[in-house]
Amino acid sequence: MTPATNPIIFAISRIENMMYQVTFDPSKGSGVIAANVSIIRDSDLNDALLIFKGVMKSGLGVGSYIRAIRDQESFGNIRLGRRECAIITPCSITIDSVLLKSGVSVRPIFGGIVQIKKGVPVRFTDILTYDSTTIDPIDALMSQELTSVTDVGSTGSGKILANVRVVPMHARERVEGVLETLKSANFDSILFVGEPNTEVLGVPIERDHIGIVAIGGTNPMAAVQEQGIPIRTQALSELIDIDEMEMV
Amino acid sequence: MTPATNPIIFAISRIENMMYQVTFDPSKGSGVIAANVSIIRDSDLNDALLIFKGVMKSGLGVGSYIRAIRDQESFGNIRLGRRECAIITPCSITIDSVLLKSGVSVRPIFGGIVQIKKGVPVRFTDILTYDSTTIDPIDALMSQELTSVTDVGSTGSGKILANVRVVPMHARERVEGVLETLKSANFDSILFVGEPNTEVLGVPIERDHIGIVAIGGTNPMAAVQEQGIPIRTQALSELIDIDEMEMV
Repeated sequence: MTPATNPIIFAISRIENMMYQVTFDPSKGSGVIAANVSIIRDSDLNDALLIFKGVMKSGLGVGSYIRAIRDQESFGNIRLGRRECAIITPCSITIDSVLLKSGVSVRPIFGGIVQIKKGVPVRFTDILTYDSTTIDPIDALMSQELTSVTDVGSTGSGKILANVRVVPMHARERVEGVLETLKSANFDSILFVGEPNTEVLGVPIERDHIGIVAIGGTNPMAAVQEQGIPIRTQALSELIDIDEMEMV
Repeated sequence: MTPATNPIIFAISRIENMMYQVTFDPSKGSGVIAANVSIIRDSDLNDALLIFKGVMKSGLGVGSYIRAIRDQESFGNIRLGRRECAIITPCSITIDSVLLKSGVSVRPIFGGIVQIKKGVPVRFTDILTYDSTTIDPIDALMSQELTSVTDVGSTGSGKILANVRVVPMHARERVEGVLETLKSANFDSILFVGEPNTEVLGVPIERDHIGIVAIGGTNPMAAVQEQGIPIRTQALSELIDIDEMEMV
C-alpha cells in the first residue's frame, strides 16, 4: 500500500543517521559537526546575529560557534530565496555523536521545554519523544511559542528548549570525561546530568540508566522569534566542518 | 524533584479523560460530544463560517454540526479577547467514545497528515503518536502548514489531517455497526477501515488489531489558515451537548 519510495521516517532515524556521520573530535578540535540551519531575511541578519551571539554568550546555545551565509543560493540541501541568508549553528546531536564515538551506547530520547527559575533548571513542562514523531520535535515545540529564552537571558527565569539522552549507568565516568573534553572544545551545553534510576527534571528515566539534559541548539532561533523577527529553522539538516565555523 | 502540582500530561491521558466524559448516543442523537474550539476575529467570522461549512459539506470534517459563539467573554475554559469569537465543531474523539461505550476496547494511537489523490486516501506522510507528546498533535501538525485541505475540496487531491485508532479484530462487526449508526446521526467521518494484521495507509498496526482512520475534526480550521485568516484552535478542550449545535 505504501509506495516504497516515500516511507514515513521518525525523528530518531534521522538523528541516528546524523550521529553516525559526525566526525568531530573534541580533543583535536577538528572534524564535522551536526548543525542547524536558520533562514532569515537579509535585512534582519545583523539583528539576528546580535541576538544569536547574546543567547550563546549567556550559555543558552550549543557550542560557541556560528557561521553566516550571505549571497548564496543554497547551503547544503537548503535552498535560499532572494534576499534571504542563513545562519549555521551547532546542533546538540554533535554531543550524542561524540559520546557514541567514545564507545558509550547513548540514546537520544526526547526534546522539550525546561522551566528555569533564577538560573536553576526546575522541570520539563512539555516533551515530545523522538521515536514517535515524523515532524522534527524542535520545529513542533518552537512553533507553539512556548519559550521565553530572552527572559532567561535577562532575568535568569523563563523557559528554554532542551533535550534528553540516556546512557547506561556504568558509563558515568567515561561520560563525564567526554563532557569535560567537549567543554574544553567550547561545547559547553550540558544543563543537568542525572543520577542512576532517578528522574531528570520531572521525567522518569529507564532503569539503570542516567539521563543527560543538554541545552537545545535552537534557543538562539527561539529568541529571534520571540522578538518578532521571521525565522525558519531546519533542524537535523546539515553537517559542517568545525573549521568553517567562527568562534563567538 | 517535580512539583506534584505540575506533572507533564501526555496527549493520550487528556484524550482518555475526554472519552470517558462523552455521553453522546448516536441512536438517540442526544448527549454530550467532544468538541474543538477555534478562536478568530469578529471581522473574520463570516468568511470562516463559509469555509468551515464548505469543508464539512465536502466531507472533510467530523460530523455535520457547528456552533458560533459571539459577544461572550468565554466559552467553557476558553477565554475570548475583545473582538474575538469562537466556532465550536465536533472532535473525532466523539467517535472513539461511542465505540468505547458500546464495549469495544478502542485505543487512539496517532494523528497525522494523509495524502489524497483524486479522492482516494494514499498514505500518511507525517504522524505523531498520542502517548509520546504533551503538545497536542493536531496543534503541532497544523502549525507546520503541511495541509492543503482547500485543494482536496476543489480538486480531490492534496493533504488533510486524519487520525488512527486500533480495535481488536474480533470487534470488527460491532465496530462496523457502530460506525453505521454514527453515519445515520450525521457523524460520517471514517476515511478507511483496515483489515486485521494489515497496515493502514502505510503505517503498521498492532497484531490482531484493525486500524481505523478518521478524518481530523480540525480540517476546517486548517482550510481557514490556508486562506491566511488567523485562527487559533484549542483541540481536546471542551464538551458540549449536541442540542446546542446547529446542523450544517
